[in-house]
Amino acid sequence: MSQPANPPLFDPCDRGRTASPDGLDAIFRPGSVAVIGASNRPGSVGRSVFKNIIDGDFAGTIYPVNPKVRSVCGVRAYGSIGEIPDPVDMAILIVPAASTPAVAREAAAKGVKGIIVISAGFREVGHDGARIERELIEVCEANNIRLVGPNCLGIINTDPTVRLNASFARRTASPGNIAFVSQSGALCTAVLDFAAKNNMGFSKFISVGNKADIGELALIRYLHADPQTKVIMMYVEELRHGFEFIETVREITGGENPTPILVIKSGQTAEGAQAASSHTGSLAGSEMVYTALFQQAGVFRVQTIEELFDYALAFGNQPLPKGNRMAIITNAGGPGIIATDVTIHSGLSLAKFSDQTTETLRRHLPSAANVHNPVDVIGDARSDRYQAALAAVLNDDNVDGVIFILTPQSMTEIEATAEVIPPLARASGKPVVASFMGLLDVSKGAEILQRNGIPHYHFPETAARAISALYQHSQWIARAHHREFALKVDRDRARQVIEAALAAGKKYLGEVEGNEILAAYGFPVLPGRLVTSPEEAAAAVGAFGPCAFKIVSPQIIHKSDVGGVQVGIKNPEEAAAAYGAMVATVRSHRPEADITGIYAQQMAQPGVEVILGIKRYRLFGPLLMFGLGGIFVEIFKDVSFRLAPIRYNGAQFMVHSIKAFPMLNGARGAKPCDIEELEHCLLRLSALATDNPEIAELDINPLMVHPRGQGCSVADCRILLDPASSCPEKR
Amino acid sequence: MSQPANPPLFDPCDRGRTASPDGLDAIFRPGSVAVIGASNRPGSVGRSVFKNIIDGDFAGTIYPVNPKVRSVCGVRAYGSIGEIPDPVDMAILIVPAASTPAVAREAAAKGVKGIIVISAGFREVGHDGARIERELIEVCEANNIRLVGPNCLGIINTDPTVRLNASFARRTASPGNIAFVSQSGALCTAVLDFAAKNNMGFSKFISVGNKADIGELALIRYLHADPQTKVIMMYVEELRHGFEFIETVREITGGENPTPILVIKSGQTAEGAQAASSHTGSLAGSEMVYTALFQQAGVFRVQTIEELFDYALAFGNQPLPKGNRMAIITNAGGPGIIATDVTIHSGLSLAKFSDQTTETLRRHLPSAANVHNPVDVIGDARSDRYQAALAAVLNDDNVDGVIFILTPQSMTEIEATAEVIPPLARASGKPVVASFMGLLDVSKGAEILQRNGIPHYHFPETAARAISALYQHSQWIARAHHREFALKVDRDRARQVIEAALAAGKKYLGEVEGNEILAAYGFPVLPGRLVTSPEEAAAAVGAFGPCAFKIVSPQIIHKSDVGGVQVGIKNPEEAAAAYGAMVATVRSHRPEADITGIYAQQMAQPGVEVILGIKRYRLFGPLLMFGLGGIFVEIFKDVSFRLAPIRYNGAQFMVHSIKAFPMLNGARGAKPCDIEELEHCLLRLSALATDNPEIAELDINPLMVHPRGQGCSVADCRILLDPASSCPEKR
Repeated sequence: MSQPANPPLFDPCDRGRTASPDGLDAIFRPGSVAVIGASNRPGSVGRSVFKNIIDGDFAGTIYPVNPKVRSVCGVRAYGSIGEIPDPVDMAILIVPAASTPAVAREAAAKGVKGIIVISAGFREVGHDGARIERELIEVCEANNIRLVGPNCLGIINTDPTVRLNASFARRTASPGNIAFVSQSGALCTAVLDFAAKNNMGFSKFISVGNKADIGELALIRYLHADPQTKVIMMYVEELRHGFEFIETVREITGGENPTPILVIKSGQTAEGAQAASSHTGSLAGSEMVYTALFQQAGVFRVQTIEELFDYALAFGNQPLPKGNRMAIITNAGGPGIIATDVTIHSGLSLAKFSDQTTETLRRHLPSAANVHNPVDVIGDARSDRYQAALAAVLNDDNVDGVIFILTPQSMTEIEATAEVIPPLARASGKPVVASFMGLLDVSKGAEILQRNGIPHYHFPETAARAISALYQHSQWIARAHHREFALKVDRDRARQVIEAALAAGKKYLGEVEGNEILAAYGFPVLPGRLVTSPEEAAAAVGAFGPCAFKIVSPQIIHKSDVGGVQVGIKNPEEAAAAYGAMVATVRSHRPEADITGIYAQQMAQPGVEVILGIKRYRLFGPLLMFGLGGIFVEIFKDVSFRLAPIRYNGAQFMVHSIKAFPMLNGARGAKPCDIEELEHCLLRLSALATDNPEIAELDINPLMVHPRGQGCSVADCRILLDPASSCPEKR
Repeated sequence: MSQPANPPLFDPCDRGRTASPDGLDAIFRPGSVAVIGASNRPGSVGRSVFKNIIDGDFAGTIYPVNPKVRSVCGVRAYGSIGEIPDPVDMAILIVPAASTPAVAREAAAKGVKGIIVISAGFREVGHDGARIERELIEVCEANNIRLVGPNCLGIINTDPTVRLNASFARRTASPGNIAFVSQSGALCTAVLDFAAKNNMGFSKFISVGNKADIGELALIRYLHADPQTKVIMMYVEELRHGFEFIETVREITGGENPTPILVIKSGQTAEGAQAASSHTGSLAGSEMVYTALFQQAGVFRVQTIEELFDYALAFGNQPLPKGNRMAIITNAGGPGIIATDVTIHSGLSLAKFSDQTTETLRRHLPSAANVHNPVDVIGDARSDRYQAALAAVLNDDNVDGVIFILTPQSMTEIEATAEVIPPLARASGKPVVASFMGLLDVSKGAEILQRNGIPHYHFPETAARAISALYQHSQWIARAHHREFALKVDRDRARQVIEAALAAGKKYLGEVEGNEILAAYGFPVLPGRLVTSPEEAAAAVGAFGPCAFKIVSPQIIHKSDVGGVQVGIKNPEEAAAAYGAMVATVRSHRPEADITGIYAQQMAQPGVEVILGIKRYRLFGPLLMFGLGGIFVEIFKDVSFRLAPIRYNGAQFMVHSIKAFPMLNGARGAKPCDIEELEHCLLRLSALATDNPEIAELDINPLMVHPRGQGCSVADCRILLDPASSCPEKR
């Protein structure tokens, strides 16, 4: 049921349609549905889909289409969709792949505006299938039909005015406010099963299959506008949108009336990506792209299916906390301590109660109880004691949320205690999550909680993590929006240099052209020039002061390997001698290389060495990289990524989110660096990457960041051009 | 039910008895049991305990003791234990705390050799309770009686020849091979409930309560010798043994016939530790002690109760893998990809199948299936296809274990597929873990797996993590044991220096005495001497070559803050001038300080700067620390810890386990450092810490590690003495 990543048979940049939510009502809210391939054969998909629609009490009209039978499950069948005497809004196709384009044409003729293709046998099986898929989507495009699939489980809409289970899932979804979008059909089945046991309700349930038309971005847009949907859960193997995804989804997750989105993205490891793709390595290295993409879009990424459930329950049922100060209430010390550890590890803090709260707790709890946080109502607590404690802490302005723990002891009133929580939680406007520990004794209590919108977890650790997820998302929504920095750039100058280099057949640009391009974007490039004789070398050092010399040769990329770099050349005499010596050394190493000359550049003032980079990805555009130089990148992998373009927020995130940030900010008695100018450099980098799609890779290594107020200096740069690397989305 | 950390009313170093497994059979295998405080009152603990023993079909004889009734639950009662006409091996006390010493005396007179005190009201309530607890334990010690508790839930022994449920748990344990030891009674209740639902069986179940006598170490020793126990699960809030724990438990977890131990230690964060202890901060900072302790003892530490269960199931039922090469079998792509990601992230690898295996798979699976790893038998697979795939991969020598995934699809034979796994797994001798996804549809299949010893998890991620836990433990058992390095140390010389300093009332030792002590333990100390005039300073530089000067004053600890450090003093002239200048500068900063002179020390050759440290903890002895200097410790917290004494293995672990290790091993074209000599220095540090309990803290910062073959140099050191910091365990 799972789909390998698409072979590049469709241009992945051609995506206007797949991202649009227009016309999706034809899929989710049809008045009439034809099931083409509906069947009476037990166990067949054609029967399952039809039965699911009938059993789901569909609010519209359903027409089975099957030329071989008179009726399906007792409902009159038609030989073709054209024979149906009434208008049809949506068709579900369960027919061999090869016949889908023809059937889609019939459906188009009938006026259908939505199609779900359940059948497999398309791009996931290779080129022949891909050809059919292309034909199918051409039919849909020509007739303005939206398509789910092919190769999918179908969709479910629990809206009481629709009640459509157009899938062959073994189970249906109960109504609720969680939307689930999945690239794996098998996972849909499993999720419905888990949800059934856990009283988890869904607004919409979509198996996207091959995503030939409707993809995640279209669905996110549609679901954001859906009044039934409060939170979106997604299982994703690959996305096909970069910049547009970020720009759209950041507003959906963090703008007005936000809809949180939880995602599990599989294929993180090279092995997992390979399992997800028959095209070895096609996705390798793009893990940091997805990390950046989700962070920039405010999508909450989880690592396991279990977390996807756990957090969706919390997002679907509870308000976001206003701060990170949590209260814990427990009737047992051990679980309270464990919950405390996880609360702190999850980035939350323990609330410090007001004197009044402590006093109230003291009045209601026995002397052996703990009236400080975590509150221990102790083992013999009945529901009244729990109630008093919960009311007191929810009433405290220092408390932003509550983790409620119960262990079943001999006096414990499990159900009565469960009844206590929902009204108090609702009235407070603060999030409350619960863990009634165990599986058997507490099951009725857990059910009461679930029915009343209190997220319940078997373990207190999970409860603590879930409320932390709520807090993290609240931080995204409340993030500061910095004023933008007005860049002054000379785009035309940069384009001239790039186009001249491409015209000359150059791929690698060193510092001569590189510095020109960077200077055009306002980077603080050190004075430097190409010198072609000992005399010119001496003159350059005379003009600039102490210099670094770097060999310039179109064939030589790794200059220091061949003796082509020398720093600290102090005066004209040294310069003249160094010129000759360097040229001779390089010649001896690489006799075949054409030596253009030497780039003589003023030595940089001291500073902290950082690296700025660009790497362009076909589907996602340019990925910007930032980190401290040398060992910090190589050994500690202490780098941050963002897809371009970034705003000031993004530049600030990149700089502040590396572990070594204190080294820029004046650690160990050093002067703080000019972080503001560094952030400006990242904005320049973003503009450079966005404006010039031919830049496939770029490294500034190092950029010297001087003390605050003294700016930065580009000390070395390297650019790789590729005229084919441009992606239309970015223009 | 949970116990706060013990107030220091008993000397925590006096622990011979609490660590001994002698006489525990009186608790676990008594022929006759008296329940003192047995009661007919519904809901009372005295009734629960008595009923649990009766209902558990105890193989021995049970005597209720209650002076107020004729019988309890129909069994003839006695007014006191002395009135029982037969011998009694064990007594369970459910009487007010204050009367327990007297009752224990009666029990002793009756010849009882084991006592479980369920009652609370001892050290956990303060000093009065602690006094009673001390009296109680004195009675037990005087009469050679072993004691569980006080303030506990009791114990369960499922051994079919004993069948003793001496607890007031709401549920009992089914027989099995997992032993559970818990410092939280409430957690015991919850664990029994989870286990009941998951077909998880226990050999022994022990709520240790206040651990007045029997603690974790005694139980680990006893359970290791118990033929019913295959794995030990522990919930720990605090341990009271350091060196002895490590030395004993490392043999139990990693020696002959090993017993794996899984532990969750709560109170990791300062807030959690405070929740665990009424004595604010008493445990603060000891998290790294526990980390070292568990690592050194080969105890597998988990972070959540859920992991404790998940991994215990795997350890209890499956063999350890011989390597990390896993095969994944799935009928759905998505879950297979997720499992692949988690497998790789957990330190395992995907097995590369032999050609023969691939061929066999190709023969048995349809063409759309994936015959490479992860094997996808695809959605319509029945049990025969799963069986063929499992047999093929288990038969491949390149496969060390299998993760078996099933999603319930329309053709899936859930139960028949479950039946397939156990015989194949058993015959292979390789570990197999399973995830049948969902909760309802797959429940019968899951039950078949659980009954037949195949660990089953709701999510494939958990299955992958569980088999990774098995692999990690196999790595501990198979770890290399390095030859030991024979240290040559002059203990007497070091003792002389320390004792002289203590006699002089000195607490902080700088380099004068510090280097002498280090030199006595064979540390590579640079030549240096105390100089007290410009002339002596000049002479020292004449003798040693370029020197560093450091002020020597009993009042000055942070020398560089007052201008008391100067490096690179090249010749005698510079030295004479530097002497006067430094003394003047220091005087101006600290006019009140007595200036002894200046320590002139040869400049160290270049090398990588590392830090070696000792910090002594009262209960656990000296903790050794290692890390790279400066930012690596301060910003990246990239340090490793071990409790002393360490062996060569431990020294090697400390050096190799820091993230920055490549910087010592020749990263970025540098020469590899003298790692062997660095490891020797850590062994010297261990010996120094172990031999000299007055050393409370010691820092060598930095130790310069020179290129391989050129050794190390101590460039700076500082020692804090505390005559009271000694702990008898270490002698």
